[in-house]
Amino acid sequence: MKSVIIIGNGPAGISAAIYLKRQNIDPLVIGKDLGALEGYESEIENYYGFAKPIYGKDLIRNGIEQARHLGIEVITDSVISVKPLEEGFHVITPHGQYETRVVLLATGKTRRTLHRTGFSKFKGKGISMCATCDGYFYRRKKVAIIGCGPYMMHELEYLKKISSDVTIFTDGNPLKYEVDIPVVTDKIIEFMGDEKLSAIKTENQTYPIDGAFIALGIPSSVEFASQLGVIIEKNNLKVDDNYMTNVPGLFAAGDVIGGKLQIVKAVYDGMNAADAIYQYLAHN
Amino acid sequence: MKSVIIIGNGPAGISAAIYLKRQNIDPLVIGKDLGALEGYESEIENYYGFAKPIYGKDLIRNGIEQARHLGIEVITDSVISVKPLEEGFHVITPHGQYETRVVLLATGKTRRTLHRTGFSKFKGKGISMCATCDGYFYRRKKVAIIGCGPYMMHELEYLKKISSDVTIFTDGNPLKYEVDIPVVTDKIIEFMGDEKLSAIKTENQTYPIDGAFIALGIPSSVEFASQLGVIIEKNNLKVDDNYMTNVPGLFAAGDVIGGKLQIVKAVYDGMNAADAIYQYLAHN
Repeated sequence: MKSVIIIGNGPAGISAAIYLKRQNIDPLVIGKDLGALEGYESEIENYYGFAKPIYGKDLIRNGIEQARHLGIEVITDSVISVKPLEEGFHVITPHGQYETRVVLLATGKTRRTLHRTGFSKFKGKGISMCATCDGYFYRRKKVAIIGCGPYMMHELEYLKKISSDVTIFTDGNPLKYEVDIPVVTDKIIEFMGDEKLSAIKTENQTYPIDGAFIALGIPSSVEFASQLGVIIEKNNLKVDDNYMTNVPGLFAAGDVIGGKLQIVKAVYDGMNAADAIYQYLAHN
Repeated sequence: MKSVIIIGNGPAGISAAIYLKRQNIDPLVIGKDLGALEGYESEIENYYGFAKPIYGKDLIRNGIEQARHLGIEVITDSVISVKPLEEGFHVITPHGQYETRVVLLATGKTRRTLHRTGFSKFKGKGISMCATCDGYFYRRKKVAIIGCGPYMMHELEYLKKISSDVTIFTDGNPLKYEVDIPVVTDKIIEFMGDEKLSAIKTENQTYPIDGAFIALGIPSSVEFASQLGVIIEKNNLKVDDNYMTNVPGLFAAGDVIGGKLQIVKAVYDGMNAADAIYQYLAHN
């Protein structure tokens, strides 16, 4: 069993890793490929220490190199699920699975969204970002899952248990998996309904739907946290003074916990979370 | 009158300047020449964003360049006094003087000391770091002032008012000023006394002394702050949640306010102090 898995290879995650390593703890950092990283696509001029503005992704790349230079293991993979164990957590990616005593969520806060007519209107009214959180409300109903990758497949497993009428919408992307349920590969045009979602309109057809679950890309920290029962306030994970959520051993740092969405704040969080995790490991 | 003078060109001061500039406030940063900078003489590997360890002074130099690149005025000078005005402050250096509404103390926390026998023993028992704080206790007594530069001359003015028996000890350095009081240029060997300081022993002679005021180099933030009546706890300037000391308009950030003596913490302080100063200027 590992001591600490850090999900996220940005400022908060890497800073935490650096400070854990100083405490003689070897964290495993799991983060996105830089190509898949959202944000960090502009020049940064307000993070102290760079004579000239630094391109966001270069800063992220530097951080990863910095961690590796200190002997920290940073792997490129997508965490699709975090599950509680009796002690610790089970972290699952498409390429591996790990057991760990502590998880630090530091994925940043890219809000997954679909820029289509009706999305905002029906979010929370038929459109959900979390199958394990909201799936139960749609048992035995007509359910759509929107996505095409490993995270979609993971969420699908759960949805299939609650409904026998599930359709995959890939929104124009190819599906690389063999499945035994209907698949719509058309691009989605609109989410339709009156008070609540009642249909999804694609380029070619309109499908009656009671609940649509978004499982595009990989889940955000807010989504992992929801699955684990973490208290979320205004879309931020609620943490105590020690950066721990209400789930013992589950810590969070950086943009996911709210506050100023600034690099230095994320780096500062990382340092403090590392110290708090060190204390937690020493006493548990 | 300026809006903000920042004393200190390290991580806290420069970070504050950068964030003030973003708020459309033009601070003046006054900081030491890098050659005179204490500390920052090792490689830094725990501040996020540098693939390879960065030499401390290079980081400081980068920060100053970064600020200038953003159009911030950063000058090399030594602040020897900060005095309160009816509104704002009067900031004095050997080369100029300024009036400003707000002062941010961000000098870091180099503790000025003299590595001589008896120094620690008699610090607070006859040896003082602040003439304007403690001078009164030595009125009409035999007083020594130890130093040779502009800060010594500044402190001397005050001491001459409280005692007619003041001697300058330059501790082996040349004195570049014309003065009308005794000057001892020998190196100091020992501070002597029983319960309290009673004499200073140099290479050549022993001088009876009741009070010795250290005015070497330039004053630290703790010393400025003492002069201004700032509450100091455990050698840290006490600030409120808005990084303001008990003196309205006098802010502090970085190592001087205590907490973790880490670069990222200083940078983080700087960002927050800038926001607080912005609010203060908007409401006063």
